[in-house]
Amino acid sequence: MTNKKEIIAGIIIIGNEVLSGRTKDINTSTIAIWLNSLGIKVNEVRTIPDDEKIIIDTVNELRRNFNYIFTTGGIGPTHDDITAEAISKAFNLEYGFQKKAFSILEKYYKPGEFTEGRQKMAKMPTTANLILNPSSGAPGFYVENVFCLPGVPSILKSMLGGLNNVLVGGDPLLSKTINLRTVESEIAKSLTDVQNKNDDVEIGSYPFFRAGKLGVSIVLRSTNQKKIDSCNKQILEFVKTKNIEILREV
Amino acid sequence: MTNKKEIIAGIIIIGNEVLSGRTKDINTSTIAIWLNSLGIKVNEVRTIPDDEKIIIDTVNELRRNFNYIFTTGGIGPTHDDITAEAISKAFNLEYGFQKKAFSILEKYYKPGEFTEGRQKMAKMPTTANLILNPSSGAPGFYVENVFCLPGVPSILKSMLGGLNNVLVGGDPLLSKTINLRTVESEIAKSLTDVQNKNDDVEIGSYPFFRAGKLGVSIVLRSTNQKKIDSCNKQILEFVKTKNIEILREV
Repeated sequence: MTNKKEIIAGIIIIGNEVLSGRTKDINTSTIAIWLNSLGIKVNEVRTIPDDEKIIIDTVNELRRNFNYIFTTGGIGPTHDDITAEAISKAFNLEYGFQKKAFSILEKYYKPGEFTEGRQKMAKMPTTANLILNPSSGAPGFYVENVFCLPGVPSILKSMLGGLNNVLVGGDPLLSKTINLRTVESEIAKSLTDVQNKNDDVEIGSYPFFRAGKLGVSIVLRSTNQKKIDSCNKQILEFVKTKNIEILREV
Repeated sequence: MTNKKEIIAGIIIIGNEVLSGRTKDINTSTIAIWLNSLGIKVNEVRTIPDDEKIIIDTVNELRRNFNYIFTTGGIGPTHDDITAEAISKAFNLEYGFQKKAFSILEKYYKPGEFTEGRQKMAKMPTTANLILNPSSGAPGFYVENVFCLPGVPSILKSMLGGLNNVLVGGDPLLSKTINLRTVESEIAKSLTDVQNKNDDVEIGSYPFFRAGKLGVSIVLRSTNQKKIDSCNKQILEFVKTKNIEILREV
């Protein structure tokens, strides 16, 4: 289902804590929902270790394949925060104090508390643009189409709004969800027929178990509301024929 | 931090629902924690769309780089479940009914209810090995080093135990977490010093905000318990000197 005006993004989650299973990534969902609202679709997510060479190679591979790349994690003050230096190397740019970032952090901390460790958070490609951080001072940054955000979900979320006017999106991606009290195998054939007749709408089918009960969420996605509505109608027809219960909430 | 006996795995999350942000992936965490217990480390996770060519290319790229690959999602009965056929193509194997899977599903459903849609769940590379499903009948499967699991977290989790004797692991990966009431920039320098003296232990530093309070989790990882203990001791020394509170629970 390729849209001619489609603007696509990739996300790179940098962090051993996600690969070890200790931390569940929720930043992908936050970024994807926000990008969808701007008409940008996420087409790939890679989770990689805190390893300089892997970061450089992944950024350089993906930034050529997508309109936008977002990285999360590794821009704090500790020894395992290596994203800013790796991005400098990926773009062959000088790594050092970004003046505006230094000045923001200098004002953020009390006199005498802007220590060497904290100063590290002002180090990045010296020519990078900043992504302001309304939560905790330390800014993110971007170089060309690569946007570097922190890993802490609440801070990351607070910084996205500042990019709304920086990104250029496509047609907004619309969606409609139909929740049914059924199992996938009951509706598989009918759903295939609807998909075959509506190739401009992406139809996803997602089984769920909640509160001990089975159900299926059908998600319709398109940039065209009329096509979603028409597809929705066709689905409701077979749902009625099969006498399947529609769930308001799941 | 490369261990000579390191056995590494990659995970491929197949699913538009994760890329759209609608669903937060928790299968990575489940698989990674289970693999760690077997001495297998996850080094990359890729989330990709329900797109045959992308699935084939990703599987064929990653299966050569890792000892084991796990895919999640796309093995159900609906039109958007294309993993089994894509894996057949990736390995150049015949896609059709796997006899044992067909027989399991035939017994699972009541007479007359083993419909065409449900029969699709027995289709896979005909020579694949099965991964039994104690939750809902439909098995997963594996071909060489590629293990295909469903996307529904509770079902996936119930199937992992069946693979414990199939996978060959390395030295178990041990870890120790120290939770501190501090901020990263307060401990960054001391932590760097400890890391520099302990290059067999991977030290991660993860800030958190919980119940409105700031803290940092320090995670030590190694296959060697003595080295973790020694590293832990060095950290507790600077924590004491700096008069930082240690948190029992976070």
